[in-house]
Amino acid sequence: TNALKIATIPGDGIGREVVPEGMRVLEAAGRKFDIAFQFDEVDWSCDVYKKTGRMMPEDGLERFKKHDAVFLGAVGWPDVPDHISLWGLLIPIRRTYHQYVNLRPCRLLRGTTSPLANRSAEDIDFYVVRENVEGEYSEAGGRLYRGMEDEIAIQEAIFTRRGVDRVLRYAFELAKTRKRGHVTSATKSNGIVHTMPFWDERFKAVKADYPDIETSQYHIDILCAHFVQHPDWFDVVVGSNLFGDILSDLGPAVAGSIGIAPSANINPEGDYPSMFEPVHGSAPDIAGQGIANPIGQIWSAAMMLDHLGHADAAAAVIEAIETVIADPASRTKDMGGKATTAECGEAIAQAL
Amino acid sequence: TNALKIATIPGDGIGREVVPEGMRVLEAAGRKFDIAFQFDEVDWSCDVYKKTGRMMPEDGLERFKKHDAVFLGAVGWPDVPDHISLWGLLIPIRRTYHQYVNLRPCRLLRGTTSPLANRSAEDIDFYVVRENVEGEYSEAGGRLYRGMEDEIAIQEAIFTRRGVDRVLRYAFELAKTRKRGHVTSATKSNGIVHTMPFWDERFKAVKADYPDIETSQYHIDILCAHFVQHPDWFDVVVGSNLFGDILSDLGPAVAGSIGIAPSANINPEGDYPSMFEPVHGSAPDIAGQGIANPIGQIWSAAMMLDHLGHADAAAAVIEAIETVIADPASRTKDMGGKATTAECGEAIAQAL
Ligand SMILES: CC(C)[C@H](C(=O)O)[C@@H](O)C(=O)O
Ligand SMILES: CC(C)[C@H](C(=O)O)[C@@H](O)C(=O)O
Repeated sequence: TNALKIATIPGDGIGREVVPEGMRVLEAAGRKFDIAFQFDEVDWSCDVYKKTGRMMPEDGLERFKKHDAVFLGAVGWPDVPDHISLWGLLIPIRRTYHQYVNLRPCRLLRGTTSPLANRSAEDIDFYVVRENVEGEYSEAGGRLYRGMEDEIAIQEAIFTRRGVDRVLRYAFELAKTRKRGHVTSATKSNGIVHTMPFWDERFKAVKADYPDIETSQYHIDILCAHFVQHPDWFDVVVGSNLFGDILSDLGPAVAGSIGIAPSANINPEGDYPSMFEPVHGSAPDIAGQGIANPIGQIWSAAMMLDHLGHADAAAAVIEAIETVIADPASRTKDMGGKATTAECGEAIAQAL
Repeated sequence: TNALKIATIPGDGIGREVVPEGMRVLEAAGRKFDIAFQFDEVDWSCDVYKKTGRMMPEDGLERFKKHDAVFLGAVGWPDVPDHISLWGLLIPIRRTYHQYVNLRPCRLLRGTTSPLANRSAEDIDFYVVRENVEGEYSEAGGRLYRGMEDEIAIQEAIFTRRGVDRVLRYAFELAKTRKRGHVTSATKSNGIVHTMPFWDERFKAVKADYPDIETSQYHIDILCAHFVQHPDWFDVVVGSNLFGDILSDLGPAVAGSIGIAPSANINPEGDYPSMFEPVHGSAPDIAGQGIANPIGQIWSAAMMLDHLGHADAAAAVIEAIETVIADPASRTKDMGGKATTAECGEAIAQAL
């Protein structure tokens, strides 16, 4: 059969509650647009780590190498250190599958409001393109004089030309598909004197291949300020692993969608599966109560559909989300409603 | 005599226009509160660099070692690279004078408005304490295979226990003087795996000495989002050189004061002069027109007065700023008025 093979990893906390809603909506979209899915679910999580000492089996990543995509909920739990839960699962998937682009839409959806005064949907509609596998997130570095007065910690950020060029190129290609066609580069070459001037050089070099795309460039400090003051300036914003991480939380925050924002970890060549996950985490404070908002997961499902060539189905899912948020009765608690996770997911599936 | 010895560096662009207004207000405050100033002005700037090849004389920093403070306008000009204008002047002053704290108030002043909906003065009133001499702003690192396909750039961030502890301690001491007494630490220990876990360890260690101070800790990505969504959560926020840089632009942006925000580069022990400068730069686009807003410089003068033991004079200057902004006729163009730089400065001096 030609069903799409999707590896699903509910993970921890509310991940287990929202992933089923994402699947429910995918099934509904599949019925409407004639797409078949084969879901292969694994229980890779902190819970399992606590029993087995591993976040995933040794050959875990092997198993999904040929899948079409990975659909992830959330990983992480307070009693498991990040270097185990994240560096034992999330980061290895990003790296092993060469998902070198992290893509996040920053959009004011119908039915939501921005914390900014006087901003409407037309003002906030951009993408953050984040380098996702190298840069500041590096295991190079360490400690000197551990535990002593003279203790020193060193962290090396490593930027390669290949790594920088390909994510910049992705940003320019994305801009070509957009109405405005504008790319903003995040830098800090006045303070971070080795890697950031290199980033700027490569931005200039790659930009030369895209004469029709307008560009701008800001230091990360003032860029964050501009996100708040002028969200309407942006179309596609590209940044390093760390800067992209910051901007892709700040962007959804100014759009009022941080609780429902989706993200895509993309291998643009399609040699490996890409991974789709909501921006929110496992939310230990509300986990297990059935009140988590499933929209981030469902919006991530829409990004997955789009990536897999089903742009029409993706657009229909987003439509359905907007229709449902507009109705207070289908909203979960965080959006001022009383609906359960399942009720909200069901409403979106229905709206399709 | 016991006049306060102040080194003034107008620098470039609008720095030359706003520093005189800062001095005018200092003189006015001096008359009222019986403080004498001796201003020693130097022309260290990109202009002079272009003529002489140096941003400052070789013994420049020697000359002000015993001064009470440095009062700086802005440095930087488009045709001079940052590694000359900033790394030849601003950064050496910060480092040579051991100004290891960069302090910035994030406050909604009377008469200004925040870009956030429904936020008033009580909601936004916190400080960002930034580590100012080490960390991510390091000259360690370089390039491999320069100009070739395989090119790699490496940047080392270096954190010392002494450097981290002293800025954390400053943040806790500051919190002790505040009504709320709360410190928030900016981290990213889930992604930056060597230096940030070290920062967190030191935060925990220093915090143990301040049992009365409440604390919280967020990863920089979600912390930026919280600045937009919940500015009222914060009292004193402490971060590394880079994170502090980002937060101390974002904070004033959410407070609506980025164009008028002040900053203090502090040597807390008083072994060396501290330096006071507005957050804005030399603004080549409006330089020379006499329309620059002098309030950032004047607010920086207030921080200088406070640092030099004249809290009453500092408070009076801020009062005067608030009185003057409330009157549209005294506002400069960026704040919707028609006043010149000098008219605005004069009005504040008068209001004193
Ligand atoms: C000019 C630049 C080096 C500087 C910095 O990042 O330190 C500026 O943004 C500041 O905050 O003073
Ligand atoms: C969980 C963490 C390592 C992660 C990151 O910083 O990459 C998160 O913030 C994200 O953006 O997916």
